[in-house]
Amino acid sequence: MKKIINQPGDVLDQMVKGIVKSQPGSLEVVEGTSVIKQKNLNDQVSLISGGGSGHEPSHAGFVGDGMLQAAVCGQVFTSPSSNDVFEAIKAVDKGQGVLLIIKNYSGDVMNFEMAMEMAEMEDIKVNKVIVDDDIALEDEELEQGNRGVAGTVLVHKILGAAARSGLSLDELTELGEEVVGNIKTLGVALTGATVPEVGKPGFTLPEDEIEFGVGIHGEQGYKREELQTSKEMANEIVGKLRSSFDWNNGDSFGVLVNGMGGTPLMEQYIFFNDVMDELEDDQLDLPFRKVGNYMTSIEMQGLSLTFIRLKDEWLNYLDESVSDVAW
Amino acid sequence: MKKIINQPGDVLDQMVKGIVKSQPGSLEVVEGTSVIKQKNLNDQVSLISGGGSGHEPSHAGFVGDGMLQAAVCGQVFTSPSSNDVFEAIKAVDKGQGVLLIIKNYSGDVMNFEMAMEMAEMEDIKVNKVIVDDDIALEDEELEQGNRGVAGTVLVHKILGAAARSGLSLDELTELGEEVVGNIKTLGVALTGATVPEVGKPGFTLPEDEIEFGVGIHGEQGYKREELQTSKEMANEIVGKLRSSFDWNNGDSFGVLVNGMGGTPLMEQYIFFNDVMDELEDDQLDLPFRKVGNYMTSIEMQGLSLTFIRLKDEWLNYLDESVSDVAW
Repeated sequence: MKKIINQPGDVLDQMVKGIVKSQPGSLEVVEGTSVIKQKNLNDQVSLISGGGSGHEPSHAGFVGDGMLQAAVCGQVFTSPSSNDVFEAIKAVDKGQGVLLIIKNYSGDVMNFEMAMEMAEMEDIKVNKVIVDDDIALEDEELEQGNRGVAGTVLVHKILGAAARSGLSLDELTELGEEVVGNIKTLGVALTGATVPEVGKPGFTLPEDEIEFGVGIHGEQGYKREELQTSKEMANEIVGKLRSSFDWNNGDSFGVLVNGMGGTPLMEQYIFFNDVMDELEDDQLDLPFRKVGNYMTSIEMQGLSLTFIRLKDEWLNYLDESVSDVAW
Repeated sequence: MKKIINQPGDVLDQMVKGIVKSQPGSLEVVEGTSVIKQKNLNDQVSLISGGGSGHEPSHAGFVGDGMLQAAVCGQVFTSPSSNDVFEAIKAVDKGQGVLLIIKNYSGDVMNFEMAMEMAEMEDIKVNKVIVDDDIALEDEELEQGNRGVAGTVLVHKILGAAARSGLSLDELTELGEEVVGNIKTLGVALTGATVPEVGKPGFTLPEDEIEFGVGIHGEQGYKREELQTSKEMANEIVGKLRSSFDWNNGDSFGVLVNGMGGTPLMEQYIFFNDVMDELEDDQLDLPFRKVGNYMTSIEMQGLSLTFIRLKDEWLNYLDESVSDVAW
């Protein structure tokens, strides 16, 4: 395992310190926790996300005015504790309530929901939105339902802008559910990722194989194939998204190509070009386009493609500028 | 070679297309070239940078209002042609002249200077600033002088903001030279990088070795050592920068930790934390801090640390917000 770390057990603690030290004017740690919060909160509904670490810049990179008010950072690929989520809720509540944006993994859902109950006992109003944008597997194959992957950052941005504009907790919850229902993501992996405390990759792929539909923690995908061209990968992934959305010419979508950590931007742009070529006959309206590392899987090589069926108001929220965040 | 590409010979062309298609509102290709330019130019001195590709988001990711007006993209790790640089100059000149920001490599310097001469024959006023921030090797070891590496993006930002504020070509040139003289960078590599057309890494390191001072094209560094902790790497790199700057308590600096492409943000933040710890006794004033992938080396694992000795005005230029760019 070749990584720039100290002791594998110290990764979370030292990463959290590093993040906050890199933005001392805008971020702070909630004492005694691995929660990173926005330093100066607005008088609005506050948004919290989080989960296991290893997906940076998700989620701490999106803490800031106009996106998240706190990120709860678990150990690498491990759900944070309900206590840390509870401390995050208390730290960011401004009396207007708190919305939790949870990626759909059983540990995350359990711990975030437990924290909601703890907060309700202290009369803090908390709602949740569960993100399940991955379409790699059919529903019946998944006890927990679909996983939450890169589309989560679009939820952060839309709800973050909406919260700043003054929407109520109930309005944000309803908006969040509608947004989540319109986001779908599918990925492809070229390599596995190594959790520092484990010391070896969670799965391995032969030098000439790729796997479609791998999850952001290395969960199994839906098929392994021989290494193919970017154009062939774009054809496979766009094809699945096309039939899942069942879109029509002229429909309006946002597109996100998300690098998994070890795939350079050069390749992400080549893939993006192939996606655009692939979509030529679909004649979609694509007013929102984004390419880069947003929801990574440590140093995994691979990428995912996310589509969001847009409404005008959502596009405004996506386009609204934000500073001090990794958006 | 496991990459998301099509034919290795098509990488540059398809990447350039992908970049422009990802920002169709703000970027366009100069026809018949691999030059990416800002679509709607301001009435100001225009800035151009560029060089071999493989360093994304450098330089095309910084084309936009308040940074660069064009990036000239060469083949991977290969200087762009003087003709492409010349076409870039003609495409962005608004009558107030053009400043070329050149990383100090013999091919880049030669082709950019040749383009300057071509432009002068057409009465376009062009100046240059050569960036040579890498302190890995002593001057006497280098025929060409020090290499230009990650500090180049700080030059883009400062000069980009200054140009937008209305400085003249001569003022910008003078500012650029002063800025470059106050930037130093040193890196460490854990792996090599594979140029697609070559198909194998430019150099390899055993699984238990790292190399300090490796250049962004895999140029030889100054020493190989056994894999060590982030803290030890920070000690080595900060030590070299400290003695090179010969700073005093209270001096004001900006700090940039730059990922080389294959090193996840998690590790970059851990390293940043160790850098901050290492600097504790120095008591520097560090009002500008940045961590992320800005000047990469395809999928190389490793990172670099850049310091810039700040003046108040430069800090304002660094802090000024920009949109539509990878800053």
